[in-house]
Amino acid sequence: MSEAAQTLEGWYALHDFRSIDWVAWRLADPTDRNTALDELQSFLKEWQAVEEAGSGSTAFYTIVGQKADFVFMYLRETLEELNAIETAFNKTIFAQYTVPAHSYVSIVELSNYMAPPGTDPLQNPDIIARIKPVLPKWNHICFYPMNKRREGNDNWYMLSMDERKTMMRSHGMIGRGYAGKVKQIITGSVGFDNWEWGVTLFANDALQFKKLIYEMRFDEVSARFGEFGEFYVGNLLTEEKLAQFLSL
Amino acid sequence: MSEAAQTLEGWYALHDFRSIDWVAWRLADPTDRNTALDELQSFLKEWQAVEEAGSGSTAFYTIVGQKADFVFMYLRETLEELNAIETAFNKTIFAQYTVPAHSYVSIVELSNYMAPPGTDPLQNPDIIARIKPVLPKWNHICFYPMNKRREGNDNWYMLSMDERKTMMRSHGMIGRGYAGKVKQIITGSVGFDNWEWGVTLFANDALQFKKLIYEMRFDEVSARFGEFGEFYVGNLLTEEKLAQFLSL
Amino acid sequence: MSEAAQTLEGWYALHDFRSIDWVAWRLADPTDRNTALDELQSFLKEWQAVEEAGSGSTAFYTIVGQKADFVFMYLRETLEELNAIETAFNKTIFAQYTVPAHSYVSIVELSNYMAPPGTDPLQNPDIIARIKPVLPKWNHICFYPMNKRREGNDNWYMLSMDERKTMMRSHGMIGRGYAGKVKQIITGSVGFDNWEWGVTLFANDALQFKKLIYEMRFDEVSARFGEFGEFYVGNLLTEEKLAQFLSL
Amino acid sequence: MSEAAQTLEGWYALHDFRSIDWVAWRLADPTDRNTALDELQSFLKEWQAVEEAGSGSTAFYTIVGQKADFVFMYLRETLEELNAIETAFNKTIFAQYTVPAHSYVSIVELSNYMAPPGTDPLQNPDIIARIKPVLPKWNHICFYPMNKRREGNDNWYMLSMDERKTMMRSHGMIGRGYAGKVKQIITGSVGFDNWEWGVTLFANDALQFKKLIYEMRFDEVSARFGEFGEFYVGNLLTEEKLAQFLSL
Amino acid sequence: MSEAAQTLEGWYALHDFRSIDWVAWRLADPTDRNTALDELQSFLKEWQAVEEAGSGSTAFYTIVGQKADFVFMYLRETLEELNAIETAFNKTIFAQYTVPAHSYVSIVELSNYMAPPGTDPLQNPDIIARIKPVLPKWNHICFYPMNKRREGNDNWYMLSMDERKTMMRSHGMIGRGYAGKVKQIITGSVGFDNWEWGVTLFANDALQFKKLIYEMRFDEVSARFGEFGEFYVGNLLTEEKLAQFLSL
Repeated sequence: MSEAAQTLEGWYALHDFRSIDWVAWRLADPTDRNTALDELQSFLKEWQAVEEAGSGSTAFYTIVGQKADFVFMYLRETLEELNAIETAFNKTIFAQYTVPAHSYVSIVELSNYMAPPGTDPLQNPDIIARIKPVLPKWNHICFYPMNKRREGNDNWYMLSMDERKTMMRSHGMIGRGYAGKVKQIITGSVGFDNWEWGVTLFANDALQFKKLIYEMRFDEVSARFGEFGEFYVGNLLTEEKLAQFLSL
Repeated sequence: MSEAAQTLEGWYALHDFRSIDWVAWRLADPTDRNTALDELQSFLKEWQAVEEAGSGSTAFYTIVGQKADFVFMYLRETLEELNAIETAFNKTIFAQYTVPAHSYVSIVELSNYMAPPGTDPLQNPDIIARIKPVLPKWNHICFYPMNKRREGNDNWYMLSMDERKTMMRSHGMIGRGYAGKVKQIITGSVGFDNWEWGVTLFANDALQFKKLIYEMRFDEVSARFGEFGEFYVGNLLTEEKLAQFLSL
Repeated sequence: MSEAAQTLEGWYALHDFRSIDWVAWRLADPTDRNTALDELQSFLKEWQAVEEAGSGSTAFYTIVGQKADFVFMYLRETLEELNAIETAFNKTIFAQYTVPAHSYVSIVELSNYMAPPGTDPLQNPDIIARIKPVLPKWNHICFYPMNKRREGNDNWYMLSMDERKTMMRSHGMIGRGYAGKVKQIITGSVGFDNWEWGVTLFANDALQFKKLIYEMRFDEVSARFGEFGEFYVGNLLTEEKLAQFLSL
Repeated sequence: MSEAAQTLEGWYALHDFRSIDWVAWRLADPTDRNTALDELQSFLKEWQAVEEAGSGSTAFYTIVGQKADFVFMYLRETLEELNAIETAFNKTIFAQYTVPAHSYVSIVELSNYMAPPGTDPLQNPDIIARIKPVLPKWNHICFYPMNKRREGNDNWYMLSMDERKTMMRSHGMIGRGYAGKVKQIITGSVGFDNWEWGVTLFANDALQFKKLIYEMRFDEVSARFGEFGEFYVGNLLTEEKLAQFLSL
Repeated sequence: MSEAAQTLEGWYALHDFRSIDWVAWRLADPTDRNTALDELQSFLKEWQAVEEAGSGSTAFYTIVGQKADFVFMYLRETLEELNAIETAFNKTIFAQYTVPAHSYVSIVELSNYMAPPGTDPLQNPDIIARIKPVLPKWNHICFYPMNKRREGNDNWYMLSMDERKTMMRSHGMIGRGYAGKVKQIITGSVGFDNWEWGVTLFANDALQFKKLIYEMRFDEVSARFGEFGEFYVGNLLTEEKLAQFLSL
């Protein structure tokens, strides 16, 4: 039996992808559309207040292509809070004009983390900033889930801790080369959703997503052990862009 | 030919995942909504009575994310009883506002069980409590189905009984380390549903699901032989939370 | 090239799984519901007459869980007859309240069958009873499709006839241990549907399905070569249970 | 690099599988139903005329089971003609009562074909009859798509031309054993649809589909290299049967 | 760790496949249909102007078979522009009569590109023409996504740069044999969509798609390392054909 890596967890995450029912939105009574937009605006303000209070963070982006029209990414202290947000949203008028497209449940994690003995990582501001992060307002988002492969001779979980550490270090070096260009949030989803991890990337130049992931694919840890799910890419929905997005 | 493990079975299980049609629920006549809630309450009382009579047990949780809005997990003596519950529910007004999201049919099982000669396990209260368990009312539920792999050199069913026992023992040791934190119900589903087993976990701290399953993944029995389906995670629906959940 | 096993075929089989649209059924005019039930009863009588005339057999069971609400399993002389039944059913009022859930097309087969030279198997009543069977009215049904694997070193179709015969004999021995408890109908579906075989089991005690299939899974022919599709399990719909099932 | 086989192509093929919306058909105004049937009859006549003019061929069969209710198989000179037929059909009243169920785009091909130097195969009537065939009006149709496997040691495209030829010859021998019983149309779909080939079989006795395909499965080319998609089987829709099929 | 190939990127690409809801189109008010057609015509003109201004390119083709009725392929400078086109289209009346069928997000790329030191490739008109191409108006389109395999001994990303270069060179030679017959646009989609690349081919003779892809399949880079998704094939929608296509 190989030893499991130590992890430190922070906020729970819900990625909530939705499509707009444009026919219904078009046919809606203008009063209904206004009420819907007002409700949405209040939610955004409420979530902004949560972020300012340091008890969570929220990202709101469109999604390019037909997989979804937009995504809410919520970070909160508990699964109950995430569930409450979902339910509250489902009861709005705006939600009536949307269709669920995909979702993902996970928790922000620091991998291979070992606190120095006698210290409490949750008193360390650098650590807190990493496991309870304020999501950046960069132009683009990229999300995908992933597993570590367990097949024949390519079985990640049968490797020794040392082998895994060496490979992950080289992997991390590539990531560091994109510092300032790509911000990466790793969330663990074992026991919460269908893959082992979720990866959420933010960048001002979307091309950096491709450069980073493509470069990593030649790294042994991705080449031999990475299994990837569906990729979603999108654009930041500022207040101004939101108005444009939903106006007819 | 390798020898099959002995198993002892108890109650049949039905996991019934459903989503709410929020648009219809919103548009419903308030009288209809009240009737629907009354019906749902009577069912919950009826199921509570079954549990008190020791002839079954029921769990009721929300599900986080878009896979479903809630799950009923029923344990009963026979497949006929499970089927009758399903049908009765389908005929309610509340069911009209829900959409089937997923289901799983299985039976609680004790694996590798061998009763001492001359004894009847069904007279043993400890055994009964394990195969006809009262489901805990803990904060969180986690459900996933699994298979033992049969691929190339990783073929569980071609191993000797001894090899399988040794691996399962180490696996069980990890589980025991979570005693008091995670309660685990194993249900067998060979012949009843698409995977070989269902695993239902309960915990007051949802993070323990991740810790337990992640630690187990480095164990040879999971690393080489575990195949996993979709994961569902949720929050306990107490009477108070149920009212909140469905109120508009 | 390995030699194909000899097979002897009897009746064609159609498994027709359907779900009930409970909302529509509830909203239906009571007169419509009565007409629907009358039509269904006439079909059941007609199929009963076919069975008594020895020109076919029919089974009617509920299905547990959300995969379907019930299944008709029809055995008839020709694909045209199966098609005619389907079409006739689709034109009924009752069918309007049902939704197709799954179907499977196959033909009852005796594998490795070699008639003694100079004899006509279709004159042999034992053989006829096996390839044109009257379906039992036992409490439970279990259906699943399967393939023989063709992957790397586990390629059934590259084995010699002798190897295959030896394995199938051991497999058959397990089945024989369940005589009187489980009745098994093997149907071949190469060229007719997506898997190579359909397996339909009947039992009065549903647990015997699990015991039998689990025991077989340790047998080399299943362990190394068996690939399985979706499993469906259900309860006999007697006339009395049918009335209960559909009454509101 | 291994050498590609030479192929000779004839007519493009579109398999268009559709289901009937029986509820809508039942509820339709009888005038609408008559118009729909008249439109369908004109199409059939038009297609018959195309066949008589030697510029295409059409088959029309029901499909057994829930995958579809019927299939049109069209052979025409160009992709544009196939597209025009589709679009024309989609605009009919009858089409309003049908639902797309599956389709397949391919082109009739002769494999390993090498015309003797200095000759034009399209002047050879035997060749023409094979690549621009008149579809038989036999009782049954069977359709499935297939690939040649490219996995580990079972990689068809890494074999030498000689190895492939030897295996295909043995494969062809089995087919020849069914001459007069099964007529086979091979269509290539590389670049046109999701699999590499489509196989369409016709027979008066449907059991011959199973016999032929099962026998071939033991042949190395199928056993090691064949990957198969969904199978569809059906019955000839003569004018008389069509009337019966759609009458209420 | 193997070295990643250098790439040079140009325009972002969105393939937007849609089906027509023919029943709704038929039932639509003729005024609505005319408005819809007018809107569509304005979009086409607008996109034509973008093409003439050199800031993007658009292709518009029908799709044969049921996967979709037509595809818009857009090339633009940014993801935001692609998103804006999508949203604008979704708000049209014509869009109300269409259903999303599939989409793909990628970016035109030149692989293994290394600009001579001290030069700016974006000043080189030949390079610009390849990464910001004007899409040809040829008769046919073919689209499919692909991955390079990472399985056991067939792991593209574990090969040395030299091995990969040698194989890609031989692959490129085949492509060059089709110069003038098939025009190929390679788009990278790592980080943008579910596969690593999209391949879009144009030809006046659709058969050339099959010839080219089939010949390539015997090349080691495809035979051992190519994994392919769904294939779409279609016909050019000129203004005249468009009118025909949508007229009733």
